[in-house]
Amino acid sequence: MTVLPSYVGGEWRAPVQEGAPLHDAVTGDEVARISSAGIDMAAVLEYGRQVGGPATRGLTFHERALMLKHLAVHLREHRDELYALSHRSGATLYDARFDVDGGIGVLFSYGSKGRRELPNDTVYVEGSVEPLGKGGTFVGQHILTPARGVAVQINAFNFPVWGPLEKLAPAFLAGVATLIKPASQTAYLTQRLVELIVESGLLPEGSVQLVCGSAGDLLDHLTDQDLVSFTGSASTAQRLRTHPAVVRNAVRFNAEADSLNLSVLGPDAVPGTTEFDLFVKQLVTEMTVKAGQKCTAIRRAFVPAERLDDVAEAATDRLAKVAVGDPRNPDVRMGALASLEQREEVRRSLKALTDAAHVVFGDPERVDLVDADAERGAFVSPVLLRADDVDRAEPHQVEAFGPVSTLLPYTSTPEVVELAARGAGSLVGSVVTGDADFARDVVVGVAPWHGRVLVLDAENAKESTGHGSPLPTLVHGGPGRAGGGEEMGGMRGVFQHMQRTAVQASPKVLAGVTNRWVTGAPRADESVHPFRKSLAELRVGDTVVAGPRTVTREDIDHFAEFTGDRFYAHTDEAAAAANPFFEGIVAHGYLVVSLAAGLFVDPAPGPVLANYGLENLRFLTPVNPGDELTVTLTAKQITPRVDADYGEVRWDADVTNQDGEPVATYDVLTLVAKGEVGNSDDG
Amino acid sequence: MTVLPSYVGGEWRAPVQEGAPLHDAVTGDEVARISSAGIDMAAVLEYGRQVGGPATRGLTFHERALMLKHLAVHLREHRDELYALSHRSGATLYDARFDVDGGIGVLFSYGSKGRRELPNDTVYVEGSVEPLGKGGTFVGQHILTPARGVAVQINAFNFPVWGPLEKLAPAFLAGVATLIKPASQTAYLTQRLVELIVESGLLPEGSVQLVCGSAGDLLDHLTDQDLVSFTGSASTAQRLRTHPAVVRNAVRFNAEADSLNLSVLGPDAVPGTTEFDLFVKQLVTEMTVKAGQKCTAIRRAFVPAERLDDVAEAATDRLAKVAVGDPRNPDVRMGALASLEQREEVRRSLKALTDAAHVVFGDPERVDLVDADAERGAFVSPVLLRADDVDRAEPHQVEAFGPVSTLLPYTSTPEVVELAARGAGSLVGSVVTGDADFARDVVVGVAPWHGRVLVLDAENAKESTGHGSPLPTLVHGGPGRAGGGEEMGGMRGVFQHMQRTAVQASPKVLAGVTNRWVTGAPRADESVHPFRKSLAELRVGDTVVAGPRTVTREDIDHFAEFTGDRFYAHTDEAAAAANPFFEGIVAHGYLVVSLAAGLFVDPAPGPVLANYGLENLRFLTPVNPGDELTVTLTAKQITPRVDADYGEVRWDADVTNQDGEPVATYDVLTLVAKGEVGNSDDG
Repeated sequence: MTVLPSYVGGEWRAPVQEGAPLHDAVTGDEVARISSAGIDMAAVLEYGRQVGGPATRGLTFHERALMLKHLAVHLREHRDELYALSHRSGATLYDARFDVDGGIGVLFSYGSKGRRELPNDTVYVEGSVEPLGKGGTFVGQHILTPARGVAVQINAFNFPVWGPLEKLAPAFLAGVATLIKPASQTAYLTQRLVELIVESGLLPEGSVQLVCGSAGDLLDHLTDQDLVSFTGSASTAQRLRTHPAVVRNAVRFNAEADSLNLSVLGPDAVPGTTEFDLFVKQLVTEMTVKAGQKCTAIRRAFVPAERLDDVAEAATDRLAKVAVGDPRNPDVRMGALASLEQREEVRRSLKALTDAAHVVFGDPERVDLVDADAERGAFVSPVLLRADDVDRAEPHQVEAFGPVSTLLPYTSTPEVVELAARGAGSLVGSVVTGDADFARDVVVGVAPWHGRVLVLDAENAKESTGHGSPLPTLVHGGPGRAGGGEEMGGMRGVFQHMQRTAVQASPKVLAGVTNRWVTGAPRADESVHPFRKSLAELRVGDTVVAGPRTVTREDIDHFAEFTGDRFYAHTDEAAAAANPFFEGIVAHGYLVVSLAAGLFVDPAPGPVLANYGLENLRFLTPVNPGDELTVTLTAKQITPRVDADYGEVRWDADVTNQDGEPVATYDVLTLVAKGEVGNSDDG
Repeated sequence: MTVLPSYVGGEWRAPVQEGAPLHDAVTGDEVARISSAGIDMAAVLEYGRQVGGPATRGLTFHERALMLKHLAVHLREHRDELYALSHRSGATLYDARFDVDGGIGVLFSYGSKGRRELPNDTVYVEGSVEPLGKGGTFVGQHILTPARGVAVQINAFNFPVWGPLEKLAPAFLAGVATLIKPASQTAYLTQRLVELIVESGLLPEGSVQLVCGSAGDLLDHLTDQDLVSFTGSASTAQRLRTHPAVVRNAVRFNAEADSLNLSVLGPDAVPGTTEFDLFVKQLVTEMTVKAGQKCTAIRRAFVPAERLDDVAEAATDRLAKVAVGDPRNPDVRMGALASLEQREEVRRSLKALTDAAHVVFGDPERVDLVDADAERGAFVSPVLLRADDVDRAEPHQVEAFGPVSTLLPYTSTPEVVELAARGAGSLVGSVVTGDADFARDVVVGVAPWHGRVLVLDAENAKESTGHGSPLPTLVHGGPGRAGGGEEMGGMRGVFQHMQRTAVQASPKVLAGVTNRWVTGAPRADESVHPFRKSLAELRVGDTVVAGPRTVTREDIDHFAEFTGDRFYAHTDEAAAAANPFFEGIVAHGYLVVSLAAGLFVDPAPGPVLANYGLENLRFLTPVNPGDELTVTLTAKQITPRVDADYGEVRWDADVTNQDGEPVATYDVLTLVAKGEVGNSDDG
């Protein structure tokens, strides 16, 4: 019998005990055994801190992102193997894809977004430079640096592939070493996943470790630099959150727990509408995907009181068609729960729920099965409940973590918003309606209790990823009962693994710390035009000063005529003077930036390939006829691409008039070749 | 004798017991008595939720910000009274200003930044629209809505004015009701502050409540929508953090505790340099301001080993000149600790520290006093210690919360970074050096353990606000021992009081929720040019489509000649074709946006007053001679100002070519009058 090894300290280590058996959810056969006996948890953490951390944070964000992309490609090539193994946990092929492809999708998303939204550097610079004194010699800005500890990731049994990957991707991108602690029940899937990761050799050694089995005294060894990301039950979250070492060291603790997620049918969505069908279909899907073992599944389905019968009937029709049984059988729509213990747990919760609700569909104690044995496999029927008394506590508080939902009536928008709050914090809610005003009222009303809200309608139905799917670009987590955490959300999930530090310094020192030029920092030697320098030669602070150019009334008249922009402030002296901001005719802002480019551009072919954009343009002082413009262009940030022979250069452009007043400030965005380019003929 | 009343449920309420005495730190006289006996804490919270919350979040961000500004003005008019009262806590006038003016400064900062950085709306929209499907019918975006509970603000004794105000400002701006719970010792100052706030009538009723005395069973009544912001000792933070109701409801908990903050003298800063003097001066200032009772004070002063004697000597010279005594005496530089109990606490900590360090200056048991009685007043001498063995734990772990610092030697940059980490998380560190490379290495090295790092040098010395001053625009807080929290940091502190929710919807519904137009949302009737509509008439989605205009080779040649921008891609067919991104001559990006303006601008005087900027401009498809440009301009966001007769309108500009390909996208920023303007002559 396989005993699951752990991957710690750079090697696969078998436990010193035989461990506890893990059973096939469908057949009851033993799949593997699990134990962490003999693993020195303090040493595991220290290895992550001393080996994995430095190896990871020594790479730039872009290098890490590219590794995540390559890892995604690698895992995609092996996904069939993971699908097959998933069946043993009770998952259908659809369920397995949800888990496996979902996880790989997170890697792709971070691999791509990481290169678009983070610098190719090791320090992240957040927000604007804050002036801290009038003289400009003292400024502040926030930087983010990776925590120097280990991200301890404690995962739930229901997503043995997606769970670890959605936690690993942001941690790794942040530059923090990961320790994966899977839930025992499905640890054989996570173990194989980590095996695939280790075999690939794509990530630096020490950046990922795996402990199969009990966490033992792991938490006792946490320091102020470690993190815990937990997914699982609210009660375990509370236990971990109050662990003495977590509390003493204010360990960053992120929890994602189950919740009483709701779905609301709009009053407009009467039977026969697309939205009515979407609501019922989504409800049944959420009940049956992964046999309802999704922390995001719909537990409370709010329906206008007068539609309750219609919905119950339509849902019953659909549920009756759901074949339950061996998930390997392609006709089967719903497989098994993860274990017989889970089934007992669901039945216990159903007992509490049926005190306050009656069964509309399904029998908690029996189910017809396809190709499966009700004694050995952890099967349960989908159970739809109906609670006509919304003031009973159970439907808002008791979660049956299986294919179970409760229909509840409501009579007004304020009422459904108030009922939503009784869940005391949820991961996700959905509103199914074609009425944009109702949607707005419900979304804004329930938002304080939700990490995510989906509005489903005929317009987005085809593209919608559904109520139950957390997405890497959006936050996953919720307040209160849902654990109070946040995961993913694009770069937000990365930043949670980093320490935010306000840096106060002179502009020169701040520029050194952030590796970008800031106003007031020294400018470099101006002897060579910076457009003549390749990315390899260019330095932050390289500058060209050009001008002056006088802007004449003829220039303004001509520009108005040529472009067609005859706005009165550029063409009508009296009307312009009546404008509260001008004293007479002013130059077009577009003329100012066009002339500035005429001044700073070095025209001959060279490393600068293209101007791809402009940001943060502000016109600060009106330009009147006769004003003389000077522009100072300074290399502000240099971002070589990891996968191309060019990169981005952001330039600070500062246009002033003859009195030194600022006329316009903006960032010019260019693509610049890394080295000499073919058609460069001078330097 | 005054018994401090609490302000709860809309009225001042005296406790039902006489309470415990609070003593003047200087004279030992009784100042007031304090008790919260008889206050129904559950009712206080419920009043905040039911009255204060709705009243506050019903206002827009700009309305709230303006109220904070007005409150700041009001408090500034009464600051002398607060200064006078401060003396009773042992504070000199300088100390009192630090507390009082510092707090008022926070209000001014949020009053101003709130209107610049937040929308004039009740929902905050965060980050970009995330495409969730290729067809554009399903998109996501994050919104922030105010938590529906009460921000319970538990303050420390050392900043009875700044503390409550730095917590109130971001909570109020977020739209969340506040409950202030001051530390007893100096609660008479906070009580007077709240009296001034209530008397002003400037904030909505219920938005601020005050409980003087014990918190009683307050925390038992917290829900998932409440928040706790705590400043004080690490041990109390741990007790509150593990309170059952806090844990059960995953209550947002922000802690700011004392820490072993460091200051590092650079190796370049030898005696005789400006930086050497700055280091010593700052060290002595941090020891003596508020008698060292600042959570940000320097506790560990790291000095190159060979400079330790020099620094000890120079600091001793300065400390010897610090007059200690009655803070009302203008010659006195350092007043009393807050209480005799605090003095005992400091002496206890000093006993632990002197096991590992020896005294360089001061006597823990006695001090010469000006106009004061050592028996009745809580006076202590500044005490400078020196620990030659940096491996002793005490200097890195024991904080004497008074005028106490320890000098420690270091021999290399990696060593000082490693020693910094032994503080296990600090609020602030400072580096005093003229060497930008050393500064960078230390800042980036110690950042993971710090919420704020200051680099002090000759360049910024005049403007620097100093090691010990948290600023409203920068985060205040630190990891680990410092509590793991973050306060202020500009809008970051506001957002902590709000729930982040990912909204997934069709563009139309998302636009309704966020009150801004998003790509794919319906555009409004185009019969009236939107430049003819005042801010009151204009609606999100109002659109003008204009064009096409053909861009000819002559246009490009002429633009190059006229502006001087003769970049080869616009002028040299062969060179342009050799560029990896172009197939031949392309139009200038500046030409494209200039022509687009010529198309969309409606020239006659009207409500549109000025174009003040441009954002997020991206050139997406090159424009070749013969291409025809069409521009679609759509009102995206409308921001009327609360204190002017105009506001900002952000327009989405979308330029396409004859094939419908996107050529350029950007936001145009304009100022638009609220109503009819004087010089408008048509509509």
